[in-house]
Amino acid sequence: MEFIHPYRLAFENYLKREVFDKHPQELYDPINYIMGMGGKRLRPVLVLLGNHLFNESFEEALPIAYTVELFHNFSLVHDDIMDEASIRRNQPTVHRKFGINAGILSGDVMLVYCYKSLQNVENLTIFRSLVDQFTQVATEVCEGQQMDMNFETKDFVPLEDYLQMIRLKTAVLIAKSLTMGAIMGKAAPQDIQHLNQFGELMGIAFQLQDDILDAYGDQEKFGKQKGGDIIQAKKTYLVTKAMELADVPTQQTLTTFLNDQEMEPTSKVDQVLHIFDELNILEQAKTEKMRLQHRALAHLEKVNAPAERKQILENLSLGLLDRIK
Amino acid sequence: MEFIHPYRLAFENYLKREVFDKHPQELYDPINYIMGMGGKRLRPVLVLLGNHLFNESFEEALPIAYTVELFHNFSLVHDDIMDEASIRRNQPTVHRKFGINAGILSGDVMLVYCYKSLQNVENLTIFRSLVDQFTQVATEVCEGQQMDMNFETKDFVPLEDYLQMIRLKTAVLIAKSLTMGAIMGKAAPQDIQHLNQFGELMGIAFQLQDDILDAYGDQEKFGKQKGGDIIQAKKTYLVTKAMELADVPTQQTLTTFLNDQEMEPTSKVDQVLHIFDELNILEQAKTEKMRLQHRALAHLEKVNAPAERKQILENLSLGLLDRIK
Repeated sequence: MEFIHPYRLAFENYLKREVFDKHPQELYDPINYIMGMGGKRLRPVLVLLGNHLFNESFEEALPIAYTVELFHNFSLVHDDIMDEASIRRNQPTVHRKFGINAGILSGDVMLVYCYKSLQNVENLTIFRSLVDQFTQVATEVCEGQQMDMNFETKDFVPLEDYLQMIRLKTAVLIAKSLTMGAIMGKAAPQDIQHLNQFGELMGIAFQLQDDILDAYGDQEKFGKQKGGDIIQAKKTYLVTKAMELADVPTQQTLTTFLNDQEMEPTSKVDQVLHIFDELNILEQAKTEKMRLQHRALAHLEKVNAPAERKQILENLSLGLLDRIK
Repeated sequence: MEFIHPYRLAFENYLKREVFDKHPQELYDPINYIMGMGGKRLRPVLVLLGNHLFNESFEEALPIAYTVELFHNFSLVHDDIMDEASIRRNQPTVHRKFGINAGILSGDVMLVYCYKSLQNVENLTIFRSLVDQFTQVATEVCEGQQMDMNFETKDFVPLEDYLQMIRLKTAVLIAKSLTMGAIMGKAAPQDIQHLNQFGELMGIAFQLQDDILDAYGDQEKFGKQKGGDIIQAKKTYLVTKAMELADVPTQQTLTTFLNDQEMEPTSKVDQVLHIFDELNILEQAKTEKMRLQHRALAHLEKVNAPAERKQILENLSLGLLDRIK
């Protein structure tokens, strides 16, 4: 996706200047470690794209792009502690490398620095609006993470609750990345509204794609164990949709399979996929993903901005969503 | 201290209105739990007093008082996880009652809500100034906590580093409580400066008093195990001052006693206090506390505000510091 290269490069260069060289080092080293791990930098690129829609350049939005990427990484650091995850981007997670206490405290100061970066915005009205927006999205991401943790102890999660969880945990930050960039670019309220809708719908579609790929993806191509979500009994779109459509005996069978700690993993995945197939879940998930994608693009269509810049955003989104058809 | 009653009452009433009644409950229940535990409410009272110095009323500062108290409690929740503390204000700590994950995530959302409460401030210039001040103090408190954790693994901590640690971990939040209230009251820069100095010096004096009381206090009166800090080999003013003054053999003896995991606790406390006595540490700590107190009051003196309101602040500070003479 070379069309996003200028945005990504500008962000990576900005990031190099923002490396923490402060005391106590034990507090700031973990931040440099995770921020230096790389990753797609999707959210900061979205901030810059959201800004560029309404602005001839996009450099003014770099501190906001930094806020959003720092927040995303803060949430990874704390989530990895909560999930007891050892590996992230093929490297030890922060708490594995530096200890749990360092993970907690460095995460805390990352969250504070998200606000510090917003202080680069001089216009007081825009500053206030960005602080408001960021505070809202940060709250929602915490709520989404809590809902996700709650689901772990439940046999049955209504599809509606699942969609609300992924909206909060994933989609709102995608959407707010775009709209915070747009606010910095002095976009009109109705354009921000449409961009927000576009971002949220795309964010939900991304998660649906992830859920589908985890169960049906090509293991070698995507590097994950096939059916990892099924083995961990995670509530995904596929499971919650299947539970909604299945008759009571099938619901019980599915629940029994998912909760069975003794069952051989490959066999568990096969059995669960067999139930999914009988209920035609894959097709329905794909259809839902396409539906979200179309609704999202209809909102982008309504944003009043140069067509060639909207095209970049459309190409990026469709590029990210083309792993399943 | 009935003279602070009106401030405390106003804050407690405000707090009742701010109880979280939101979903997911698992995220917000821990916040209601710790915020409802009570405590002295020293920091929010200081916000209101700092505001009242420059203002006929002080209700406008209640949201800021809430920010500061919420932040203080956020730091307790995360610190208790890091210190593996089980009891706080005679009740189970948040992570003991709700689990470590709830402690981490509820703490995170508390930090976000600190900023949310600042959104009640309408004036954009004051809003920005408060966000800046709060961001700075939140960073410093994290740095202080990290320094404190670093000290655990060190045999020798220079007195200067110890003073810097308690300044960051404790004193700056005391100071910023006063100055954030004052900023809301549109105080002049030089008054904010003096108030800040007053608060920092008083904050350091409070910590020195705590250090002294832990080693020399009346156990029944103050409810703590005598010499708890010594038993835990905590770096306190007394230890760092003693290490600074002692000759090399005494430094080694002191270090050996403090690190000896096998030594009977009462005997350890007695031996360490014996070294302190030989070095005349108690007198020097008291003198230093008095010196800080005098310097603090000289700054308060210079604040341009009604004498009777400054008197309340002086009485509060001296009341809190009168547990040792």
